[in-house]
Amino acid sequence: MCRLAAYMGPDIFISSLVTEPKHSLIHQSYHAKERIEPLNGDGFGIGWYAPQFCDNPAMFKEVSPAWSNQNLRDIARVTKSTCIFAHVRAATIGGHLSRTNCHPFTWKNYMFMHNGTVFGFEKIRRSLRQQLSDESYEMVRGSTDSEHIFGLFTDRIEEFAEPTLDDMAESLTGAIVEIEKLKVDVGIDTPSTLNLVLSDGSRMVATRYVSKGDESNSLYYACTGKYSCIDGDCKMDEGRDAFLVVSEPLDGSQAWQRVENNQMILVDEQKQVSLRLIEV
Amino acid sequence: MCRLAAYMGPDIFISSLVTEPKHSLIHQSYHAKERIEPLNGDGFGIGWYAPQFCDNPAMFKEVSPAWSNQNLRDIARVTKSTCIFAHVRAATIGGHLSRTNCHPFTWKNYMFMHNGTVFGFEKIRRSLRQQLSDESYEMVRGSTDSEHIFGLFTDRIEEFAEPTLDDMAESLTGAIVEIEKLKVDVGIDTPSTLNLVLSDGSRMVATRYVSKGDESNSLYYACTGKYSCIDGDCKMDEGRDAFLVVSEPLDGSQAWQRVENNQMILVDEQKQVSLRLIEV
Amino acid sequence: MCRLAAYMGPDIFISSLVTEPKHSLIHQSYHAKERIEPLNGDGFGIGWYAPQFCDNPAMFKEVSPAWSNQNLRDIARVTKSTCIFAHVRAATIGGHLSRTNCHPFTWKNYMFMHNGTVFGFEKIRRSLRQQLSDESYEMVRGSTDSEHIFGLFTDRIEEFAEPTLDDMAESLTGAIVEIEKLKVDVGIDTPSTLNLVLSDGSRMVATRYVSKGDESNSLYYACTGKYSCIDGDCKMDEGRDAFLVVSEPLDGSQAWQRVENNQMILVDEQKQVSLRLIEV
Amino acid sequence: MCRLAAYMGPDIFISSLVTEPKHSLIHQSYHAKERIEPLNGDGFGIGWYAPQFCDNPAMFKEVSPAWSNQNLRDIARVTKSTCIFAHVRAATIGGHLSRTNCHPFTWKNYMFMHNGTVFGFEKIRRSLRQQLSDESYEMVRGSTDSEHIFGLFTDRIEEFAEPTLDDMAESLTGAIVEIEKLKVDVGIDTPSTLNLVLSDGSRMVATRYVSKGDESNSLYYACTGKYSCIDGDCKMDEGRDAFLVVSEPLDGSQAWQRVENNQMILVDEQKQVSLRLIEV
Repeated sequence: MCRLAAYMGPDIFISSLVTEPKHSLIHQSYHAKERIEPLNGDGFGIGWYAPQFCDNPAMFKEVSPAWSNQNLRDIARVTKSTCIFAHVRAATIGGHLSRTNCHPFTWKNYMFMHNGTVFGFEKIRRSLRQQLSDESYEMVRGSTDSEHIFGLFTDRIEEFAEPTLDDMAESLTGAIVEIEKLKVDVGIDTPSTLNLVLSDGSRMVATRYVSKGDESNSLYYACTGKYSCIDGDCKMDEGRDAFLVVSEPLDGSQAWQRVENNQMILVDEQKQVSLRLIEV
Repeated sequence: MCRLAAYMGPDIFISSLVTEPKHSLIHQSYHAKERIEPLNGDGFGIGWYAPQFCDNPAMFKEVSPAWSNQNLRDIARVTKSTCIFAHVRAATIGGHLSRTNCHPFTWKNYMFMHNGTVFGFEKIRRSLRQQLSDESYEMVRGSTDSEHIFGLFTDRIEEFAEPTLDDMAESLTGAIVEIEKLKVDVGIDTPSTLNLVLSDGSRMVATRYVSKGDESNSLYYACTGKYSCIDGDCKMDEGRDAFLVVSEPLDGSQAWQRVENNQMILVDEQKQVSLRLIEV
Repeated sequence: MCRLAAYMGPDIFISSLVTEPKHSLIHQSYHAKERIEPLNGDGFGIGWYAPQFCDNPAMFKEVSPAWSNQNLRDIARVTKSTCIFAHVRAATIGGHLSRTNCHPFTWKNYMFMHNGTVFGFEKIRRSLRQQLSDESYEMVRGSTDSEHIFGLFTDRIEEFAEPTLDDMAESLTGAIVEIEKLKVDVGIDTPSTLNLVLSDGSRMVATRYVSKGDESNSLYYACTGKYSCIDGDCKMDEGRDAFLVVSEPLDGSQAWQRVENNQMILVDEQKQVSLRLIEV
Repeated sequence: MCRLAAYMGPDIFISSLVTEPKHSLIHQSYHAKERIEPLNGDGFGIGWYAPQFCDNPAMFKEVSPAWSNQNLRDIARVTKSTCIFAHVRAATIGGHLSRTNCHPFTWKNYMFMHNGTVFGFEKIRRSLRQQLSDESYEMVRGSTDSEHIFGLFTDRIEEFAEPTLDDMAESLTGAIVEIEKLKVDVGIDTPSTLNLVLSDGSRMVATRYVSKGDESNSLYYACTGKYSCIDGDCKMDEGRDAFLVVSEPLDGSQAWQRVENNQMILVDEQKQVSLRLIEV
């Protein structure tokens, strides 16, 4: 079911999310605490906005486990960015793995990742695809529910010439609404879990969502002036220049705040954070 | 620390060890029960003696996890053999993975695998290598304690023109003795765990060993006339035509017998089983 | 653009197609002669019908090059089959590789592979998919022209309760006709090259096809009583018990016969071979 | 036999060596011109000195081909450095590939790579290893001639508290001399080809060497004030602030100068270049 972490703020080394904290994303790849199954070994991905490439984020994704990847350690160690996504994946045992299905996904200046499952997705995949624009249809290269949700988003955000943060939030909500509608059409009433994180490099939207009020996957966020990781501890202060959102706290700090069920977090260019209820 | 399973007897599909049982080796790759750490996701290997190739067993090894390998499932499904080794590996988190370091290892008609650790091995590697014959020195391609123990064995078994089962057992014991001696030389007194399985295709030797009587890794064996797996259950009977040795029982059957600490199991060409204390 | 080889007849080791001949399929993976570009390093696959699994062939496929794959060498060395497919792939430089896109493809008792290209395929993919049955739609997991052609075939062969060899041939021709029709609909007039090989384990159909009489990719076949490979040479005789079809002859033997442009080869259960013009 | 490229100067994107030039290193991975065999598909590596990490360069290495690696393209696209190494590898067909054997290699602040072969290396490996210090012995993790040459270098450079460029050059020459000596000891008179590139991040030494005056592998260098790549062309000027050394020119520019047989190039911190004959 995956674990994820994202950061936006003054540039930091990717390692301070992915390898350094006591409960870093790599630690969560084999010892996740807030899932029944602690293992997220079916691939990983990091995405980051590099200076001069704000409209075309870079990605490093593999189908092999994060915990044993030497390249990941070295790239995370020396690479800084003001906006970082990281994801470790748990697929169905025996399922077909493919780099194409690893998170994050990118399109133009957007980056997207998902933790959760649309149960019964195979029953709605075809009708979902049929309603996509040709551009989004071609963009979705893999077979996951996650990438198709992103396709629903890209179709919606394309309506706006210069999308605001609110447009981003509305387009993401629209994608969730559409998923629920497609499920109703074919009679699926198993809840979907949709913890989604989306950014354009300077703004971010994240959701903790589950259909019908069931228990959703865990999600936490933190605001700080400066973020760093020293000896496994996350250093955070009272400032408001940086924002983090994570499936599980990266350490034992009090700064991590639980996101409530069916809430959406919006982070603007000044890292001002607002919360909103997701209404489907 | 790894999990392993081996079979010798009338030919069976590899799947009946690796994928079909309720607690198959693939299941143990992510849900091992008798280790503190349930994860064995740092590569896997199967080895088997094919008809017409009794003196040159075949191997399929990968550095990626067993649980998501489609090729493993298909090869195990259709391939039969009278002597099968299977291994799932747990390396140190962050260590360098390499197919060369995956088990089993083969040399001439011998196949070998190991579950356990020689703590402090890096301190004795160089002196160990210096005493190897040129042939064994070249044979050991990787960096693991396991493959070097196999090198100590191959040097010893080479002394015999037509090795008996007893010669195999003595050579394996000699390798264990040498490891303990090398540790003493440099002052390592941390116990080593050496669950070893060795075969030449028609005979097998397996050990459950730990230095100085500490608790060793789990090991079980079973004798049966015919072995098969039906709906996840291992079918075993009163016969004595087949032998299995496993880190953890593949199902809840009563047929699995615990191997005691520091015992060696010898299986001859007629699948007659005898037990022996390992004296170091 | 790929190279392929297939065999049907008395059981042989896979190695006698893939690794042993002077110009084996592995040799063609880096030194193909009858293509402008000699390199087929973007993955490979072998498929074979194993005893007791005639209705569910096994596959071993990887995205890495065939020439350096130790597992391929070992599996080919010890595995025998009466019907073998082997394929080495050349993708577009810089394209996304995925095991899902490696050949052969299987569905029920059918195995299929392709050498060639439907130029402009991305323009017809969506309309092609829309006409597939739900079953074929779900079966096609990857993004290649090849697998979609197979989807057109599976939809057609499903019409027959007990398909004859002629039904197989007609269904495959139907798939080619549909591709050409879809291209006309969107105005693509670049020729497609469709060297296709299809089997159900006991019968085989192969095509050498190009749109509009252009030069197609090379294809050869051979009939023999017994096939073996000795010291790199393919041993073939006057008999008619075995059939081979290959992109390039596996050695310098005279037994290899060139398939003409736009011809289809049909091989029945008695290995009787007949040729037919492909009319689109 | 591999192809390589290295850069030192004002920071540039790695892509301007690896992916952008007409005859970029990726192009050389499948279409090398100055080797009999154009294919270098057995792994690749890039190494770079990142700001704040001058004493611990980063590496990204894989055993799969460079030409199809999406991660390589993205990392090269957004990563800048003042000192970059890049290497594409050709191993013996059928040999064992391992990431450990991919170039470049690093130790402390040094980075090293090799194009060429010590023929008969397996005959001198053991005696070479025996003379290494414990530290270099442990550093050499793989089985290649290349990494062992680096081990001979690290042992020699350790003699100097604050090595000068001359010390680097002498230590590298010492490693070459030792290889030739070890070959004499066991009677190998096949020439070795040792195109070596070494840097500590601010200084560089490169050799074009072959035993006994035979023809060695190609090597070129260029000096420029500023280096960039525009539409596939390498832009170089009359300045002396940047230095490049490559197995094959990255484009048709006149700036590339051929290194003569058995010459060593020394580049100091001010990018001043001097040439020296290698005397063995």
